Amino acid sequence: MKKLINDVDNVVVDSLRGLAAAHPELHVDLEHRIVYRGAEPVPGKVGVLSGGGSGHEPLHGGYVGVGMLDAAVAGEVFTSPTPDLVAEATTHVDGGSGVLHIVKNYTGDVMNFEMAAELAAAESDVRVETVVVADDVAVEDSLYTAGRRGVGGTVFVEKLAGAAAEAGRDLDAVVAVARRVADNVRSMGVALTSCTVPAAGKPTFDLPADEIELGIGIHGEPGRKRVPMTNAGQIADALIDPILGDLDFTGGPVFAMVNGMGGTPLSELYIMYADVVERLTARGVTIARNLVGNYITSLDMAGCSLTLLRADDDLLGLWDAPVHTPALSWGR
Amino acid sequence: MKKLINDVDNVVVDSLRGLAAAHPELHVDLEHRIVYRGAEPVPGKVGVLSGGGSGHEPLHGGYVGVGMLDAAVAGEVFTSPTPDLVAEATTHVDGGSGVLHIVKNYTGDVMNFEMAAELAAAESDVRVETVVVADDVAVEDSLYTAGRRGVGGTVFVEKLAGAAAEAGRDLDAVVAVARRVADNVRSMGVALTSCTVPAAGKPTFDLPADEIELGIGIHGEPGRKRVPMTNAGQIADALIDPILGDLDFTGGPVFAMVNGMGGTPLSELYIMYADVVERLTARGVTIARNLVGNYITSLDMAGCSLTLLRADDDLLGLWDAPVHTPALSWGR
Repeated sequence: MKKLINDVDNVVVDSLRGLAAAHPELHVDLEHRIVYRGAEPVPGKVGVLSGGGSGHEPLHGGYVGVGMLDAAVAGEVFTSPTPDLVAEATTHVDGGSGVLHIVKNYTGDVMNFEMAAELAAAESDVRVETVVVADDVAVEDSLYTAGRRGVGGTVFVEKLAGAAAEAGRDLDAVVAVARRVADNVRSMGVALTSCTVPAAGKPTFDLPADEIELGIGIHGEPGRKRVPMTNAGQIADALIDPILGDLDFTGGPVFAMVNGMGGTPLSELYIMYADVVERLTARGVTIARNLVGNYITSLDMAGCSLTLLRADDDLLGLWDAPVHTPALSWGR
Repeated sequence: MKKLINDVDNVVVDSLRGLAAAHPELHVDLEHRIVYRGAEPVPGKVGVLSGGGSGHEPLHGGYVGVGMLDAAVAGEVFTSPTPDLVAEATTHVDGGSGVLHIVKNYTGDVMNFEMAAELAAAESDVRVETVVVADDVAVEDSLYTAGRRGVGGTVFVEKLAGAAAEAGRDLDAVVAVARRVADNVRSMGVALTSCTVPAAGKPTFDLPADEIELGIGIHGEPGRKRVPMTNAGQIADALIDPILGDLDFTGGPVFAMVNGMGGTPLSELYIMYADVVERLTARGVTIARNLVGNYITSLDMAGCSLTLLRADDDLLGLWDAPVHTPALSWGR
């Protein structure tokens, strides 16, 4: 295993230390591994909080900032953060208007965020609402999941609910945006290689040099099937087909993300995006906004995922609203 | 070789097709592999143009847009674009105030951009000035280079000269900014793995599982030496020492970039950045601005590079000026 790390037991804190040094505008609690937008909550604004296991950077810490998350709680690699820390962050970001928890659908995360919501409500009377993201069409249940896994759709929920909160909408309205996004977003991924968890020191799974795994999970959980390595166009089909089979994306504008898993260069992601656009266009799907890059990764895994979200005028406006975070930034 | 590609002979055009689809605000000439900021030059503005071999994405095409490049000419992977295409792009971006060529110091690039400047001057009377970037302290001459190689410093030259042009400065002033940056920027890289050129189908060089190569070039050219794999802190030292040994970075603010080579996850780059900051601070170097991410890559190589640039008030102001490109974006 060759990684730019110092100690397999400290990779999360060491990485957060770098994030804090690079982004002094953020307030990073290294001891509790929480990235905050600032030292104090924004008065009157709904707090938007997410988190989960580390290893998916820039998710979630890279999305803390104006127009997106108020805080992100980082667990160990591929391990949910504990309820007490999520509760602490929840209390900290409550500006008096309540807090939204955005939770990827993994058993540990769902349980810990639920306990955290109860703890925060009991301790500081903060109103917490939770939206669970379960957008991965690959498999119904999985290693760490009852139901579908939460993957790339989380990036859209965080941006769009974050923009709604920034615009001053109340908790019910912010929750409504998050739910609408979660209900209308679908993803599917593919692995060309395994990832290697630092503490394990070896690849999570073995994948032959001439095979790829369709429907891979972001922790290396088994996908749908292994197939011989093929070209970008056929891989695009293999991602698009199950997504379009699950939800109708015709008849309105769509957000699309071609996301890298961490070890795949940007040039290849653009090749994938070209093929995705060509195929979606042929099938009557119109992309209104896009993201191409590394947005939700699996450590050093090579591969990519496709996420589609049905847009509406409100969501398009929220998307275009300014955002200033380490990993997504545009507008004033 | 597992890559998200369709045809090893078309990776550059296929990738540009994706860039064009993702960024309809750009004007992409797929036939000639030129990415333009728009269909027409900006009247009165100095044109800022760069380019070179592909495989370093987002450099250069990802830096075309408001506040940075007017055009980028993409050669084949690791191969300079031909003079006729560079000349065509030069003529196209001339808004009547001349054009700056930003050229990485590789023999093919230097020669082809020089011929292009002569062609453009002869054909359309455009005034062209050239700034060559040669910031890599690793080796004096190299496989494709007389003198030092041009690497990460190019990102800073493109942003800062681009901002100077956007601010309406004339060609001499824009050239002066580019030269000042080129004179005051230094880089050093390390490879944990080789890269694989698609058309070659196998790694460019062999690197044992327990060794890294210090001073690697962005095309996999030999570095200074191979050493046993070690931790991020010691790698930070191995990058910092030769840079500080070459130029004094104390006594004023500094720009710093920890750049990924394409196959290294962001979490590891932040770990490197934390170590870099700690060490530079101890040695009296003060970082005023930073970039952490994949900005100039070597296909799928794992590894990173460090770039330091001496700042001054003018450069800091130019850095903070708005930029809107696929890969760098902030401000209005």
